[in-house]
Parts: sequence; C-alpha cells; structure tokens
Amino acid sequence: MNGPATGRVAYRGAVYDVTPAPGGVCLPNGEVVPEEAVVWLVPFRPRAIIALGLNYGDHARELRFEAPPEPIVFFKGPNALVGHRGTTPRPRSARMMHFETELAVVIGRRARFVPERDAYAVVAGYTVANDYAVRDDLENYYRPNLRAKNRDRSTPIGPWLVASEAVPDPMNLPLRTVVNGRIVQEGNTRDMLYGIPEIIAYLSRHMTLDAGDVILTGTPKGVENVVAGDVVESIIDGVGRLLNTLVDDG
Amino acid sequence: MNGPATGRVAYRGAVYDVTPAPGGVCLPNGEVVPEEAVVWLVPFRPRAIIALGLNYGDHARELRFEAPPEPIVFFKGPNALVGHRGTTPRPRSARMMHFETELAVVIGRRARFVPERDAYAVVAGYTVANDYAVRDDLENYYRPNLRAKNRDRSTPIGPWLVASEAVPDPMNLPLRTVVNGRIVQEGNTRDMLYGIPEIIAYLSRHMTLDAGDVILTGTPKGVENVVAGDVVESIIDGVGRLLNTLVDDG
Repeated sequence: MNGPATGRVAYRGAVYDVTPAPGGVCLPNGEVVPEEAVVWLVPFRPRAIIALGLNYGDHARELRFEAPPEPIVFFKGPNALVGHRGTTPRPRSARMMHFETELAVVIGRRARFVPERDAYAVVAGYTVANDYAVRDDLENYYRPNLRAKNRDRSTPIGPWLVASEAVPDPMNLPLRTVVNGRIVQEGNTRDMLYGIPEIIAYLSRHMTLDAGDVILTGTPKGVENVVAGDVVESIIDGVGRLLNTLVDDG
Repeated sequence: MNGPATGRVAYRGAVYDVTPAPGGVCLPNGEVVPEEAVVWLVPFRPRAIIALGLNYGDHARELRFEAPPEPIVFFKGPNALVGHRGTTPRPRSARMMHFETELAVVIGRRARFVPERDAYAVVAGYTVANDYAVRDDLENYYRPNLRAKNRDRSTPIGPWLVASEAVPDPMNLPLRTVVNGRIVQEGNTRDMLYGIPEIIAYLSRHMTLDAGDVILTGTPKGVENVVAGDVVESIIDGVGRLLNTLVDDG
C-alpha cells in the first residue's frame, strides 16, 4: 500500500476507521489486529453508486459490442455493496456469472460542471471493486437490469480508500483478477475508453456529484465464469487487493 | 388528507417532522405555519430509489411499446429528488420534457422473499412523485439513462408520507396531473400492469429491500411536454398534491 489509506471495519462490537499496518490493520487506539480478525465494511459512506458499462475497448470487442458513443451510465442500489473478504451469493439458476475487476473512484466534495482539467480535484480517493454480472440476465448490455447487476452483495468493494494524492497516475494502473490463485484477467486503466477526467466532466454536466458518490469505471477484457466456492481476488497496483468468495444462493 | 401523515420541512434554520394542520403544517411544538412558509424536503430518508418503466398498459401503448414481460426496473441517484413546491431545471436543449405522475411506495422494514400476500406488511406508506423524463434523451425506454432520468431535482416527491394504514386500497387511487390549472393526465392505480404486491414480490426475490427504499410505480397515459414556467401539480386522491415549477436550466 502506498501512502495514506483508510478502511472501515467492525471489531468486537464496534465500527472503526483503520489504517494499514504491518501484519494487519491499525485501530484508532494504535492496536494492530490481523486482517482476518475484523469484518471489513465498505471503506467510505456510499451515496450514489454509479457504474459504467463497456468502458474498455477490448472488453466491448470480447462481448462483440460496439464501443459506446458516450459513457454508458447506470445506477446501483446500496444492497449491492459488500466489503473486503465478504461473500457474494451466486444464483443457482445462473449458467454464467462473471467477475469484473474495476477501479472505483470516490468523490470527495459537491461538484457540478467540472472541466476535465479540474476533475481530479473532486476525487477523494480510489478503491477496488468487483462488479459481478449475472451473465444470463444481461439481455442487453445497454440495459443492465436488477437481476444482472443489482443483487445483494454482488459488488465487493475495498479494502482501502486510498487518498487521491497517493495515486499519482490513476490512468496507468495495472489491474488483474486472480481466481483460486490463477491469474484470469489482466489489464491497465490506461485502456479505458472514457478516462476519469472525461467521466467526471460528463457526469457533472448532467448531475451534481457529491461526497461519497462512487464511480465504477468498467472492466477490461478477460471476464470468465466463476462458481460457488471460488475465491476471487481483484488487484489494482497501488490501490489494493480485494478478496471475495462466491457462495451458493439459497 | 386522510389519516396519519408526516412531512419534513426546513423552517427558520432547522429541519422538522411536521403533520398536516388546517391552513398549513403543524410543527412538533404545536405551532401551525402556512404551507408556503416552509421549505419542503423529501418526507422520508431515502435509501434505494427504484423506478418502474412502462407499468401502465395505456401509457405503453401511447408510446407504441409492448407491455414488458417482467417489471422494467431502474435505479436513480439521490441527486434526482426534490421536495414539494421545489423547482426542477428543464434543459434548454430539450425539445420534449414530460411530467409523469406516479404513486410512490416507501418501504418500512428490511424484507427479502416477500410473498405477494404479505407485501403490504413491508410498506411504511405512500407519497406522490413526478418522475420527469427528458424525452429527447430517452433513446430506449428499456434503458433510461442519466440524461433522461437522473438530472438534478428531476423527481419531485411529497409532500406527505401517508401511513400505509391510512390508504386502505392503494391499487384503486385516482391520480391526475394539472398543468397551469388544466387537467392534462388522468388515471387510476388499478391500471398498473404489475401491482404493488407483484412489484414487491419481484424486487424482493432479487434483492433485499430496506426501510427508506422507495418504489416509483410508473405513470398512466397522458404525458405531455411542459416548459419553463409551467406549474405542475401531481395529485393522488387520499395521498397528496405535489406541486412543482419548471425553471430554465442555465
């Protein structure tokens, strides 16, 4: 972990803001406890949850879709989020469920009509997300629906909110997904079709962004089916390593 | 107003829960102030904002769309909401912007896998919404996008949250829209394609509903273009009369 990062965890009956420490997390009183000894929550207080579809050209081609003429934006409900080391139910009826490792951009202050050159000034920080898709239910990629994209705990996020200053070039971060120890997806945020400044400029042209809003910036090529029992790691260099386990739904 | 209803208003530097009183609103200390003397806020603390598309057969036909084979569900961000007597910016570039008067169902408690027969038990109450659509931007009704459906203050809601018990038959409520004093839309909630019990059963089959979640149940036939300066009243008998004024965006 580079630079200032904060997490939110539940531990012995209470919720704490924590920082990374060798061998675990550092509680506000200075005590260090192992990463596995706490329950990881979403590392910020989420407000609007905004997701981009088809924002990497290689992924759009992989799915045989045209690159979109403007950002494809959809909203998610708070039920979808789950913290680091959480479990995500996989619907038994699903033939295909894909992981989607994504850089998540957390907004730090109210913002409207932000020009691209000022976009990073409204960013509080970054974290890692895995915006799972129930592939069977995704009849139309331009219309991600409830069943495909908004099931309970279908969007792991965390572990850390890494402050903006600690990520000097968010548009050049290697990201990868590891399933049961095997690398299955590799990409780089530089391959986004709409980069972070363009996304923030676009969104803030049509709506007011505010502190706690989070933007899931899309996933690169390499999505694959995963099944109950699979351990899925979403890793973005300098931002974090997000762990999730799929469980049977039902 | 029938039975118990609550609103949230800002008045003289503070926010209060209020109840209806002859000639205005009743503050917690018993003082009655005129309706126009307060700033009306959303009458509950919103969590997930869930909207249904094409949920009245006559409206679907009016737009030359097929009735959907299952509920069309999309989510909205909190920036979209605005209280009673608020203003909604109308994009200057829009050729068509439609009002959409809708019954809003507010969830009262955490709920998953709710059978239709128990659906009303999870409802806290009802209010009125006007889910404006920027028609130009609605390329695809199955894919309501940011520009069409999530602009700032594009969804007036209120004035009152009317307790579930005070609305004995929410599936038989006349609703209408009045623009500058002229009735332009008339319908009845009994014409919903998916009724409230079916919607709650459907949603809770795929996600956890929770207190503060609100479901906008769709609009009947009769949408029309409105312009800056128009005063739009959305009225549902026994639930409320929601006032909104369109203003120029820019």
